[in-house]
Amino acid sequence: MTDTPSGTGGVVSERLTSDLPVTDADAAADLVADDATVLVSGFGSVGYPKAVPLALAESGRDLELTVVSGGSVGEEIDVALVEAGGITRRYPFQTSKQAQTAANEGRIAFSDRSVGSLADEVQYGGLVDSDTAVVEAVAVGEDWFIPSTSIGQTPAFVDAAPELIVEVNRAQPLALQSVHDIYRPDAPPNREPIPLTDPGGQIGSPRITFDPTKLVAVVETDRSDTPYSFRDPTEADHAIATNLGEFLEQELDRSAVFDEQLHLQFGVGSLGNALMGELTDLNVGDREMIYFGEVIQDGLLDMLDSGRLESASATALALSAEGQIRLFDDIERYAEDIVLRPTDISNNPALIDRFGVVGVNSALEVDIYGNVNSTHVGGTRVLNGVGGSLDFNGNSLVAVCALPSTLKDGDISRIVPLTPHVDHTEHDIDVFVTEQGIADVRGCSPVERAERLIDECAHPDYRASLREYLDAAKERGGHIPHDFERALDWLN
Amino acid sequence: MTDTPSGTGGVVSERLTSDLPVTDADAAADLVADDATVLVSGFGSVGYPKAVPLALAESGRDLELTVVSGGSVGEEIDVALVEAGGITRRYPFQTSKQAQTAANEGRIAFSDRSVGSLADEVQYGGLVDSDTAVVEAVAVGEDWFIPSTSIGQTPAFVDAAPELIVEVNRAQPLALQSVHDIYRPDAPPNREPIPLTDPGGQIGSPRITFDPTKLVAVVETDRSDTPYSFRDPTEADHAIATNLGEFLEQELDRSAVFDEQLHLQFGVGSLGNALMGELTDLNVGDREMIYFGEVIQDGLLDMLDSGRLESASATALALSAEGQIRLFDDIERYAEDIVLRPTDISNNPALIDRFGVVGVNSALEVDIYGNVNSTHVGGTRVLNGVGGSLDFNGNSLVAVCALPSTLKDGDISRIVPLTPHVDHTEHDIDVFVTEQGIADVRGCSPVERAERLIDECAHPDYRASLREYLDAAKERGGHIPHDFERALDWLN
Repeated sequence: MTDTPSGTGGVVSERLTSDLPVTDADAAADLVADDATVLVSGFGSVGYPKAVPLALAESGRDLELTVVSGGSVGEEIDVALVEAGGITRRYPFQTSKQAQTAANEGRIAFSDRSVGSLADEVQYGGLVDSDTAVVEAVAVGEDWFIPSTSIGQTPAFVDAAPELIVEVNRAQPLALQSVHDIYRPDAPPNREPIPLTDPGGQIGSPRITFDPTKLVAVVETDRSDTPYSFRDPTEADHAIATNLGEFLEQELDRSAVFDEQLHLQFGVGSLGNALMGELTDLNVGDREMIYFGEVIQDGLLDMLDSGRLESASATALALSAEGQIRLFDDIERYAEDIVLRPTDISNNPALIDRFGVVGVNSALEVDIYGNVNSTHVGGTRVLNGVGGSLDFNGNSLVAVCALPSTLKDGDISRIVPLTPHVDHTEHDIDVFVTEQGIADVRGCSPVERAERLIDECAHPDYRASLREYLDAAKERGGHIPHDFERALDWLN
Repeated sequence: MTDTPSGTGGVVSERLTSDLPVTDADAAADLVADDATVLVSGFGSVGYPKAVPLALAESGRDLELTVVSGGSVGEEIDVALVEAGGITRRYPFQTSKQAQTAANEGRIAFSDRSVGSLADEVQYGGLVDSDTAVVEAVAVGEDWFIPSTSIGQTPAFVDAAPELIVEVNRAQPLALQSVHDIYRPDAPPNREPIPLTDPGGQIGSPRITFDPTKLVAVVETDRSDTPYSFRDPTEADHAIATNLGEFLEQELDRSAVFDEQLHLQFGVGSLGNALMGELTDLNVGDREMIYFGEVIQDGLLDMLDSGRLESASATALALSAEGQIRLFDDIERYAEDIVLRPTDISNNPALIDRFGVVGVNSALEVDIYGNVNSTHVGGTRVLNGVGGSLDFNGNSLVAVCALPSTLKDGDISRIVPLTPHVDHTEHDIDVFVTEQGIADVRGCSPVERAERLIDECAHPDYRASLREYLDAAKERGGHIPHDFERALDWLN
């Protein structure tokens, strides 16, 4: 049989071909063992399987699942299945209050993994012994499917797991095939160089292929993704965007790397989305602006619509409900400029390096020496996870950390003497930006970094006490002066 | 004129061609401004310029130099020039007590940078405004030279600096040209994929080329490199090597990635050297063992001589005096298996990933949750710097941290509740090995990591108190449980 009515590589116009093991969600869920390691598609809270996880949650079974997702997924997994007590182990990222509470109470063994290397960790690195991959698709054939609103780690998951369940989601447009570019590097140690030389380029196909003997069930569904809800930009967001814009314009003048093109990445979330949206005013002269990042958020659609952005490469369409309608209604046009790739390409160290990316990511808090905590409140209570920020902070030509200087209406300083948890070290970040200003710490010693962070980035209400900390610490000596007892007074 | 008697690309048989601005070290030193930013060759304490730095140190001038080296350099720079008070700013790594003290007392503004990204930071990233590159060569022509015992960041430094001084060192054999493979990636954003598909392969030339108008002086010298002195392997080293060997043999069975080849990297220093030497006994079956790392140490020569190692790729020949004689006496034979590359190739994230490297690096201390301090004693006093460990810990398929469980004759545990400084985060390390055992923490939650590190890797004398810490911290809750007050009791 041919695998699609239109032949391999052609445009797919039907959701399902014949001879597929189509069944309902409950029957498919029964194929998942109680203690299975389940690899699920999904990234940026979209493109994850919905019907089978919900059937598992509602099965009443005594489940002890290990759930590995591409990145963040929606409530069918991180709320319903968590509340049903079905997950005992979870990687690499989670977004719901329920999953966070379970991780913080030790009910779920959560391991916070960097998403850029997760595919390899699962397939080659010994992270888990995989049982079943459960993925969302817009169409499926005998030995291929077309993913929906995210690619994430799906190609690796499908290769790694001995069994495959595909959810075909009729709520996701078939036209999504036009934005996909699936290329998965070969297995080490015989990996070929990744041939992508332009973020907008195509090096793969819209389809993920699999060994047809793995396919144990196909389930039809029409449940929508849980769309993102971005908060409205705050005053601080506007001020951060202004400072970031000022820094970027200086940087364009500084280096010949940016003479013709500026490759940008922004972290996932409301601040990142707000920054993207506001950069439509950036004065880049004749340069092309190109996005090489992890997710497409609403702010990027604004930049594409305004003609300021040449192209955007990512692994997920993490849009608001309105953004999703906007994209789906005009997908052929957007597909000319948007490409979705597997996470090990979207977050690939070599590609981030190759394009000279300026990466802009946020944080919970930073310390005066430039260490960044982006995951654990008070150093102990996990929020979502490190996500892709390690990939971009570690490999961008210029790594920018953008965050408001305070939280809780100014009651807490986000610039502290010592972060109680470190996700990004003093070696990673080049420039800090808050609503107060810009601290370019490239080439600075630790004490110089502290001075710049305090003077340029800290909220004026906290500058004197931070300076007092630094001065007292310097009395004690050392390359990175500290008074650890005193630093604990700042712990929240 | 032709650039060598034997023509471009041929074997070079003369140290100097005519028409070069040959002068003495004092005259060359006079060409360096008092407050210059000087980029010096050198990595692994070898291949650094000696005569000009010494002339600067002895000049009696009131110098305020910024010195950027490839990696570690010898005493002419990090002792003589430091003692003369000539250095006010230093990147990315230093090895002498004098330089460490100056950094810890704030007399030198030191910035501890990862060596794998330093070339780009200097050339494109805005780290410094370069004035003069001073490099060691075995031979020099009008627009090229052949580096000596290390490549390091030299190609980038020569491109970045407007002026170039070359020291031709007659103590370094001309035959070193046979081990060099100089390939520097193009400038971003138009970087081509690096074509290296085999660590032993050749993709460049033995020469570094430069714009001939930059060459302001050529100085002849015959000062030798300061050779490494490795301490004799300790009982703990032997036990760590045994445990590491056991882990590696398990890993070879686990994954098809290692079916035909095992690519290894070891950190610089006595422990790394001892581990390399002892792995000649590793049972790898028919597999090829290949080294893809940063430095060639004596232990690797043992492995090459025993026929256990197929080839070795690195950026420097960090050998003992005996090792150097051994290599130089038989360089044609060793050149068949040894390749020296620029640091941005030897430590390249894409290549470490491509070959599925198992990276083995050490640390000062680790905390129970898997955070690693490799640079700052007590969190404040810097030793050498992070070097290349970030590149390998962050990008290896399997990142191993190997260290003795205690220091100071057992008086201090290297496994602690909380590292006061973090160079490698909980996201980086897969496996810890001490003389006590192996803690494979892949897939573990933080609390599970703590249990394994305490039970398998901590010294028995400290297990009860570490467990007591963990239990008390767990009472307080959280995903990464801590009692920070109590953690401070462990600070040294």
